Amino acid sequence: MGRTVADAGEFGLIEQLIERFGPMPKSVIVGPGDDAAALSVPGGRIVVTTDLLIEGRHFRTDWSSGYDVGRRTAAANLADVVAMGAAPVALVIGVGVPPETDVSWVAALADGVRDECVEAGAAVVGGDTVQAERITVSGTAIGDLRGREPVRRDGAKVGDVVAVAGRLGWAAAGLTVLRRGFRSPRVLADAHRRPAVPYEVALAASPNAMADISDGLLADAGHIATASQVAIEIDTRQVPIAAELLQAAAAFNVDPLTWVLTGGDDHGFVATFAKKPPKGFVAIGRVAAGEGVLVDGSPYPGAAGFDHFRG
Amino acid sequence: MGRTVADAGEFGLIEQLIERFGPMPKSVIVGPGDDAAALSVPGGRIVVTTDLLIEGRHFRTDWSSGYDVGRRTAAANLADVVAMGAAPVALVIGVGVPPETDVSWVAALADGVRDECVEAGAAVVGGDTVQAERITVSGTAIGDLRGREPVRRDGAKVGDVVAVAGRLGWAAAGLTVLRRGFRSPRVLADAHRRPAVPYEVALAASPNAMADISDGLLADAGHIATASQVAIEIDTRQVPIAAELLQAAAAFNVDPLTWVLTGGDDHGFVATFAKKPPKGFVAIGRVAAGEGVLVDGSPYPGAAGFDHFRG
Repeated sequence: MGRTVADAGEFGLIEQLIERFGPMPKSVIVGPGDDAAALSVPGGRIVVTTDLLIEGRHFRTDWSSGYDVGRRTAAANLADVVAMGAAPVALVIGVGVPPETDVSWVAALADGVRDECVEAGAAVVGGDTVQAERITVSGTAIGDLRGREPVRRDGAKVGDVVAVAGRLGWAAAGLTVLRRGFRSPRVLADAHRRPAVPYEVALAASPNAMADISDGLLADAGHIATASQVAIEIDTRQVPIAAELLQAAAAFNVDPLTWVLTGGDDHGFVATFAKKPPKGFVAIGRVAAGEGVLVDGSPYPGAAGFDHFRG
Repeated sequence: MGRTVADAGEFGLIEQLIERFGPMPKSVIVGPGDDAAALSVPGGRIVVTTDLLIEGRHFRTDWSSGYDVGRRTAAANLADVVAMGAAPVALVIGVGVPPETDVSWVAALADGVRDECVEAGAAVVGGDTVQAERITVSGTAIGDLRGREPVRRDGAKVGDVVAVAGRLGWAAAGLTVLRRGFRSPRVLADAHRRPAVPYEVALAASPNAMADISDGLLADAGHIATASQVAIEIDTRQVPIAAELLQAAAAFNVDPLTWVLTGGDDHGFVATFAKKPPKGFVAIGRVAAGEGVLVDGSPYPGAAGFDHFRG
């Protein structure tokens, strides 16, 4: 065991974390260490989103490393920024840990947050560290709309093509694998640990409506349907199911479509387009008059997504 | 007992919270309920800061109401924004609560966050709700620099006047009162529950350096001294000690100067000025060549502030 955060102290810990966030890009006028960070957002219109992840609810330290938790916290926030059509600029992070936590765990978390931010074009510009009984990580990401209009959930129009980008059901399959006590297929367990978010694909698109898939495809498509006052019709024959999921579903005796339709935490994107979806998106249905989400013409019988207070 | 968050469910709870945040100001392009909020920040340069508050560490539910915790979370963030010379624009909030928590407690928290934001000129534009064993509240505030340069900690110059605005030691005195099992003096207990932040005074000032006093006057003046590579000399004869603190200090047999110099959480401001400090600030000393903070010419013997992993 290495040094604990109690050994390092709050200010020692903060110093080590700031080091890991590395040199700041030009858009950062004041980096970590002052009362607040200062950023240049030349577009003059920004988006902001926040997520809170708690040990035991969102991750387990025996399944996920500090690095994994860092990547996931950042990805959950950065995907929301991109779902609005904004380019990620900055992220701030709050970390609550027990005093006996190894500094190396928190340092790995910082590395994970930083690496995910770099992938999305953002910088970690500040944070807060406190003592907590359970590891608690809050992230808040900021994006610059760069002159674009925000892509809202309420813009879907009857006749639009519904399409998805990114993985569907991988994180849910990985969670099933881990919950049943397995460590493999590794690629699925890893998908639970670290989402692979198609930031560039989503940023290059010009959809009428878009949402990050964090609660599950049906739940998040449902948010678009409700906000846009339309029905979203999904044709499961068009929904991509990865070979890895088909194999694992057979081995675990699960319907792979449950993972794909209701699994959250992959942070892909569901969007509606007036025309053919752009590269990286796969068409899975249509926007129609009506309400709610229809799967192959019928309301889906299972739960549509995860409720944090009931799940 | 009323309805619990488990009864309301995640989406029911979110709906109730969004209602409480009220109509959005014009600067908010997309309010709560989408993947992210969208804001107009015409200055093109923003500041961002985050804080994490955890039950048992930062507040106790038998001492503080949900409303109090909301006001305090918002104040801690908004004071940091103002300490950079930026006008508060928006705040996002993450709330983790046990499922058996009353919806009314969380609703009161939202009211407190909203009211503190209104006082500082900001709006609550989004959030996240999750399940947690201990009540956990994260806040992230954004401010617009409106063409001003950020006020940093590293701008203090030899010969500057050191001055403070806002309450000093009130929250610490209140905590002493509550810890010893008393509920009065009420004004001090309330000061622990809800800081009274002089937002306008700080925003109207043009200091060379400024910091929000969250860790204690000596600790935060020390941050300015370190960042600016100067010494800060404090003359305790000039440091304002409120009559309420003198009375309570006598009653509790405490040196009131300990509260004033080392007590955190009042979220006043310490700043250095090239000339006479503006209205609302009280001069307490000078910036000199050297390093660290000197109190009446000597290093202060006690602890300078609170370390979250050692305190």
